[in-house]
Amino acid sequence: MNQVINAMRKRVCDANQSLPKHGLVKFTWGNVSEVNRELGVIVIKPSGVDYDELTPENMVVTDLDGNVLEGDLRPSSDLPTHVQLYKAWSEIGSVVHTHSTEAVGWAQAGRDIPFYGTTHADYFYGSIPCARSLTKDEVEVAYEKDTGLVIVEEFERRGLNPVEVPGIVVRNHGPFTWGKNPENAVYHSVVLEEVSKMNRFTEQINPRVEPAPQYILEKHYQRKHGPNAYYGQKK
Amino acid sequence: MNQVINAMRKRVCDANQSLPKHGLVKFTWGNVSEVNRELGVIVIKPSGVDYDELTPENMVVTDLDGNVLEGDLRPSSDLPTHVQLYKAWSEIGSVVHTHSTEAVGWAQAGRDIPFYGTTHADYFYGSIPCARSLTKDEVEVAYEKDTGLVIVEEFERRGLNPVEVPGIVVRNHGPFTWGKNPENAVYHSVVLEEVSKMNRFTEQINPRVEPAPQYILEKHYQRKHGPNAYYGQKK
Amino acid sequence: MNQVINAMRKRVCDANQSLPKHGLVKFTWGNVSEVNRELGVIVIKPSGVDYDELTPENMVVTDLDGNVLEGDLRPSSDLPTHVQLYKAWSEIGSVVHTHSTEAVGWAQAGRDIPFYGTTHADYFYGSIPCARSLTKDEVEVAYEKDTGLVIVEEFERRGLNPVEVPGIVVRNHGPFTWGKNPENAVYHSVVLEEVSKMNRFTEQINPRVEPAPQYILEKHYQRKHGPNAYYGQKK
Amino acid sequence: MNQVINAMRKRVCDANQSLPKHGLVKFTWGNVSEVNRELGVIVIKPSGVDYDELTPENMVVTDLDGNVLEGDLRPSSDLPTHVQLYKAWSEIGSVVHTHSTEAVGWAQAGRDIPFYGTTHADYFYGSIPCARSLTKDEVEVAYEKDTGLVIVEEFERRGLNPVEVPGIVVRNHGPFTWGKNPENAVYHSVVLEEVSKMNRFTEQINPRVEPAPQYILEKHYQRKHGPNAYYGQKK
Repeated sequence: MNQVINAMRKRVCDANQSLPKHGLVKFTWGNVSEVNRELGVIVIKPSGVDYDELTPENMVVTDLDGNVLEGDLRPSSDLPTHVQLYKAWSEIGSVVHTHSTEAVGWAQAGRDIPFYGTTHADYFYGSIPCARSLTKDEVEVAYEKDTGLVIVEEFERRGLNPVEVPGIVVRNHGPFTWGKNPENAVYHSVVLEEVSKMNRFTEQINPRVEPAPQYILEKHYQRKHGPNAYYGQKK
Repeated sequence: MNQVINAMRKRVCDANQSLPKHGLVKFTWGNVSEVNRELGVIVIKPSGVDYDELTPENMVVTDLDGNVLEGDLRPSSDLPTHVQLYKAWSEIGSVVHTHSTEAVGWAQAGRDIPFYGTTHADYFYGSIPCARSLTKDEVEVAYEKDTGLVIVEEFERRGLNPVEVPGIVVRNHGPFTWGKNPENAVYHSVVLEEVSKMNRFTEQINPRVEPAPQYILEKHYQRKHGPNAYYGQKK
Repeated sequence: MNQVINAMRKRVCDANQSLPKHGLVKFTWGNVSEVNRELGVIVIKPSGVDYDELTPENMVVTDLDGNVLEGDLRPSSDLPTHVQLYKAWSEIGSVVHTHSTEAVGWAQAGRDIPFYGTTHADYFYGSIPCARSLTKDEVEVAYEKDTGLVIVEEFERRGLNPVEVPGIVVRNHGPFTWGKNPENAVYHSVVLEEVSKMNRFTEQINPRVEPAPQYILEKHYQRKHGPNAYYGQKK
Repeated sequence: MNQVINAMRKRVCDANQSLPKHGLVKFTWGNVSEVNRELGVIVIKPSGVDYDELTPENMVVTDLDGNVLEGDLRPSSDLPTHVQLYKAWSEIGSVVHTHSTEAVGWAQAGRDIPFYGTTHADYFYGSIPCARSLTKDEVEVAYEKDTGLVIVEEFERRGLNPVEVPGIVVRNHGPFTWGKNPENAVYHSVVLEEVSKMNRFTEQINPRVEPAPQYILEKHYQRKHGPNAYYGQKK
C-alpha cells in the first residue's frame, strides 16, 4: 500500500508543479488531487504552499470523505469539491482546479464555451458548460462541498458524460477539469485554457460566428478517443 | 536601530526587484517603499535606477515627511504619494506603485474594476476604485503629494477600509497598492493586474455581465481574511 | 540516397522542434514534412510524439502516397493532407500544420485574413484565404485527405498561386503553410500567426478599416520576391 | 576617427540586438542606425542578417546620403528612410524601425495614438501621429526615401517637434522612433509599443474615453524633460 500511495504522492506533486509551467496559476492558486478508491485514499496539494516547495512527502493523504490520514499540513481548501466529484463519478481518477485567466474570463461572463473548432473537438465532446453560481445558502453552509454538488448537478441536468466532457467553468469562480490520472487532468486544463482564448479571439473577429458542424465534433473526438482511434502510437 | 533598518532595506530591495519578475514594470517604472513609524523612517527605491542595479545599500532612507536621512541618491519621485498614504492610514506598512499594463488600461478608461469573481474576492473586498484625475492646481502645485491626497479622499468619500481594499487605480495614471509589508503589497499589485485582465476578458465575452453576488464576496474574503479564516496553514 | 534522406530527416526534425520555440504549438499539436519527388519520399513527424523526444532517426519516411517505407512509428495523422498538397503543387517542398492560437481564431471565425499592411505584403501576395469547412461526407470518408483537396480546390477556385500565397486557414480547424523547404514553411507559419494577431488588433482599433492599397502589396512583395529583389544579402 | 566609428558600431550592434530582447521584432524585422554628422557617417544594421549573428564588425558604415563606405554587406533596405530623417532633423542621433505588433495595430488602423495617461506623457508630448500612406508614385519611384519624406512632411504639417514627439506610425506599415542615441531611440520604441497596448485596452474597457487633460501632459513631460526635471539622479 505504501508503494502505491508513494507513487500517487509523486504524480500529484509533479502535476501540481506543472501548473505554473503551463502558465495556469499565479502564487498558490490551483490544486491537483488523485484518488484510489480501492485503497480508500485521496492525495492532494497542501493549502497555501508554494509550488516550488512541494515534495511528494508534503502532499496530504485523506480518506474518501476528505479526513486527513497522513501529513501535518492542511489539505487544499478545495478538497471538499474534489471529494464530491470522486463520489459522483467513478470513472475519473484526478481533479484539477485553477484560476487560469482565459477560463476565468468565461466563468465570470457566465457563458458556456462554444464548440468552434477541432482543437476543442479533440478533447471535449461538445460545448464546455458553465455551471450556475451557488445560492446564498450553498455558499454559507458548505461552500466547497456545494461547489462539487453544483458541478455534478449541471452534468446530470444536461445529460453529460464526465469522461467525454472532462471540464467545466463555475460561474463567478473558475475552471475545474478531471481525467484518468493527474497528468491527463492537467492536460485538460491546458486545453480548456487554450480553447477559451481561441474562442475569445473568434468571437472578436466574427461576432456572428456559429458553432461548428456536429459531424466535425464527432469525427475529431472519435479519431482520438473512439474504438477505432488512430491518432498517436499504438499502445 | 541599524539592524531593523537594514532588514527594511533588504525587504524593500527584494520587493522592488520582484516587480519585473512579476511582469509589472518596464525599465524603472515602479517603486516599493516600507515604513516604520516607531523609528520614524521610510525606506524606498532610488529614482530612475535599474532594478538589477538595486542593492539594500543603495535604498534611500527618509523621515516620515520624506526628507532624506541616509543615502546619496534621490528617492523615487513618487515618494510624496507614499508619504501621504502612510500618514492617513496607520494600518499599512508598505506601498507599491507601477504602470502595469492591464491596470493602466482601467485607470486610463476611468473606470472602477468591478467585482466579477472569486479571484478578486480573495483579496479585495468589493470593486477596486478608480480615483478622479487631479485638478490643474493639484497637478501644478504639489503633484505627487496631491496624488496621495486624492487617493485618501476617494477612500473617505466611499467609506472604504484600506486594509479590506488594498489598492486603487488613479485616473489617467495607474495603480497603487499597499499591504502590511513589501511582499504583501507587491502581492496585491499582482492580483490587481490579474483581475484587471480577467475582467477585460469577461466584458469582452459578455458585454452585459453583472457584478457577482455580494454573498460570494463575503464568503471568499472571509475565508482568507476573517476571524475564522481556513485557507493556508495555521500560523 | 541515404545521405539525402538523412539530411531530410535532420531538417524535418529541426523544423518540428522549432514549432514550440516559436510559440506555435502546445503538446504535440503540429507537424512538419518535407518531400523529395525524385526519390519518391516524404519525411514527416511521428504521430503524438513530444517535440523534445524527436530525433532525425525517429522521423517517418513514406512514399509519395503516404505509405510508410522506414520507421516503426505511425506518421502524423495529418499526412494525407500533406500528400494532397505535394501532389497538386510541384513547386512546394515542405508543409506545416499547427493549431497556433491567433490563426485558429480566424479559422474558427470563418474569415479570410485581410491585407492591411507591409508585414503581410512581405510574404503573402494578397489576403490569406479561409477554406470552407468540409462536408459531412468529406469528413466521414477520408477526412485528412479531403482537407488537402479542399485547400487545393480553394486555390484553384480563386486562381491563387501557392508560391505567392504560402498558407491558408481551414474553417473550424486551423492553419496550413508551405514553402520551398521546412525552415521556409515554418517561417510562413510564424508570419501567418503574427499577421493574424496584428489584424485582430487593427480591427479592434478601427472597426471600419479598409484593406491597404494594392500598389503597396505589389511593392513589398516584389522587393523581397521579385526578379529585382533587393532585401537581404546577395545569394 | 576609427575609435569614434568603432564606438558607434558597438552601440548600433548592441541596440539592434536589444530589439528581440524587448520583444519588438521577429526574425530580422527591425533595424537601428546612428549618425555622426561631423564625421559624415551613418552606421546601420546589415539587411536580412539575424540579430544573433550581428557583431560591431559587420555593421555597415555609409555616408550621409547612404552610400556604403565600409563593409561587404548591404545596409538595411530601410536606410533611405533613416537618411531623410537625419537630413531633416539635426537634433536626432539615432533612428529605429520595427514591425512591433501593437504599434502596427495602430499603423494598420490608420489612427493617431491618443494621449490617455502619464506613461505616454513621460516620453511623448502629445498624441503619437499616424502618417498617411504613400501614394502610388511615391511607392514606385523611391519607396524607402519617400517614407522618410512623408514622416517629415507629417511633422511639418502638424508643427511637431521631433525631440518632443520621438516617434510615429506610418499607415499600413509600422512604427519609427528616434532619439539622441541608439539606446534612447530603442527606449522610445519600447514606450510606443507599450502605450499602443495600454491604449488598445483602454478603448476596449471604455469605448467613449476622452484624451487626458493637457495639464497632465505638461506636468509629466516637464518633470522628466523640462529645465527643472526632477526624475532620476542628477547627471
